[in-house]
Amino acid sequence: MEVNREHISAWLQNLQDGICQALEQADGRSTFKEEQWSREEGGGGRSRVMENGAVIEKGGVMFSAVSGKAPDFLFKERAHSDSAQAGNHEGLTFFATGVSIVIHPQSPMVPIIHMNIRYFEMSNGTRWLGGGIDLTPHYIVDEDATWFHQQLKAVCDKHNPAYYPEFKTWADNYFYIAHRKETRGIGGIFFDRLNLRDGMSFEQNLAFWKEVGEAFAPVYTELIRRNKDKAFDETNKQWQLLRRGRYVEFNLVYDKGTKFGLETNGRVESILMSLPAQAGWLYDYKTAEGSPERETLNKLKKGLAWA
Amino acid sequence: MEVNREHISAWLQNLQDGICQALEQADGRSTFKEEQWSREEGGGGRSRVMENGAVIEKGGVMFSAVSGKAPDFLFKERAHSDSAQAGNHEGLTFFATGVSIVIHPQSPMVPIIHMNIRYFEMSNGTRWLGGGIDLTPHYIVDEDATWFHQQLKAVCDKHNPAYYPEFKTWADNYFYIAHRKETRGIGGIFFDRLNLRDGMSFEQNLAFWKEVGEAFAPVYTELIRRNKDKAFDETNKQWQLLRRGRYVEFNLVYDKGTKFGLETNGRVESILMSLPAQAGWLYDYKTAEGSPERETLNKLKKGLAWA
Repeated sequence: MEVNREHISAWLQNLQDGICQALEQADGRSTFKEEQWSREEGGGGRSRVMENGAVIEKGGVMFSAVSGKAPDFLFKERAHSDSAQAGNHEGLTFFATGVSIVIHPQSPMVPIIHMNIRYFEMSNGTRWLGGGIDLTPHYIVDEDATWFHQQLKAVCDKHNPAYYPEFKTWADNYFYIAHRKETRGIGGIFFDRLNLRDGMSFEQNLAFWKEVGEAFAPVYTELIRRNKDKAFDETNKQWQLLRRGRYVEFNLVYDKGTKFGLETNGRVESILMSLPAQAGWLYDYKTAEGSPERETLNKLKKGLAWA
Repeated sequence: MEVNREHISAWLQNLQDGICQALEQADGRSTFKEEQWSREEGGGGRSRVMENGAVIEKGGVMFSAVSGKAPDFLFKERAHSDSAQAGNHEGLTFFATGVSIVIHPQSPMVPIIHMNIRYFEMSNGTRWLGGGIDLTPHYIVDEDATWFHQQLKAVCDKHNPAYYPEFKTWADNYFYIAHRKETRGIGGIFFDRLNLRDGMSFEQNLAFWKEVGEAFAPVYTELIRRNKDKAFDETNKQWQLLRRGRYVEFNLVYDKGTKFGLETNGRVESILMSLPAQAGWLYDYKTAEGSPERETLNKLKKGLAWA
């Protein structure tokens, strides 16, 4: 089969189906509601959102395939300069397709997870793959964090042993809330603009990329299984609201997917499904010495060797 | 008295004192807690925050006076180009002082309010005044909205009849959540880079600017008095969370004060005190036909002639 946009789109929709099934089974109470949408400039998507499940408070598994005039900021970023290449892409069009997932669980003992895999091409022949999975536990469980990173490392190592160390560092740097000097969570892997690489063909990288997508459901349902029945109290719920507040700060201030979506006139409700049902901010909140909250905060740092 | 940075700073601290007193009296239960802070690059501030009052759930009245190397984005914005003048400000330093207020009330029947007045100068002699007041009712009460705009118009008209129409439009355009196609609230007035103007001296504009600051306490305490004893239910509280979610979106995605603060390594807790104690996001929420929520949403538009 030819590896073209139609193949990749169809594969992603299939992945979306499988992940929704697995999450509905793990939740055991609620189901995903679907909307199909289209955008004026070209393309559209299939949004699947679950609210008020037994395990999942708010979660989205979103497929989209959009096209249009290539947005300016792509070139800005690439040139590492504000305007140097801004004039060179007149008439260029893009096509982008991907699956994006954010799950906010009910329980503060179950981690928030995010996964995204995306394919991008332009009318000048440029194409690349991007993606990543990262985990944001409200309370870091070392054993789970290690296991999570080991699963991602195994996916990477199977295709290219250079990938895990590089993409783990990339995630540390990407999922970083600079103004808080905190990572969003324990990271994971992140990669972008992957095409030919270390002698690997585009097709070989596509195989890696697909396995990242396929890793999501087994990894997250296992983390749900391990943590969903743990007891929690009001202190834990308040901390969950504050950690969700940080999640909101990251997504609205730093996240490039959010920026890309808003700048390309994407569907707002799909882009902002990443925001939790509720989040909170207390002024100048300080965790107590020796508390589990402090322990987690101390591990929201770049460069921890979880695997 | 010479109008210099020391005079303006001292006047602003005085204003902060008066506003805090008026708000404590209006709240009747809680008081402001103060922190003084300084920043490495120069200057600091005096933060005053109230949490969990009878009327005010979370509110900050923040004074700051900071200085340092003039940040790049000031020049970008001015030149209306990304990099044209970026090289011309080597060695320039800035001084900025202001009072910033955001009040999130407990009751969904009491509006959120924001006020900011700021003075900015650079070592090349450039100086200007900026500021504004805007109101974000969870439920728009037409009579209050009209009264609020009339108070601001009266302050403007006393100094320059051109100001209210211009600064009201500026507020409509500034406090706009582009991705939602909604204004943040009912607007108010907003102005920036005010110096000489229509034959007015800097000192004359300073007099206007001071009256904007002095208008805050009587205007907001009156709006509290009118609305604080109104009954509300769970539907109203849920709607308040969603409106606060929009407030968070505006402040983190669009607000220039937030951007300036984060980019100049300002004190994060002071900058982000604008965020509410709790906010919420429901996926693809639609107001019901004929509901008070729909009625409010229909008035979150630019160009309404409230005064």
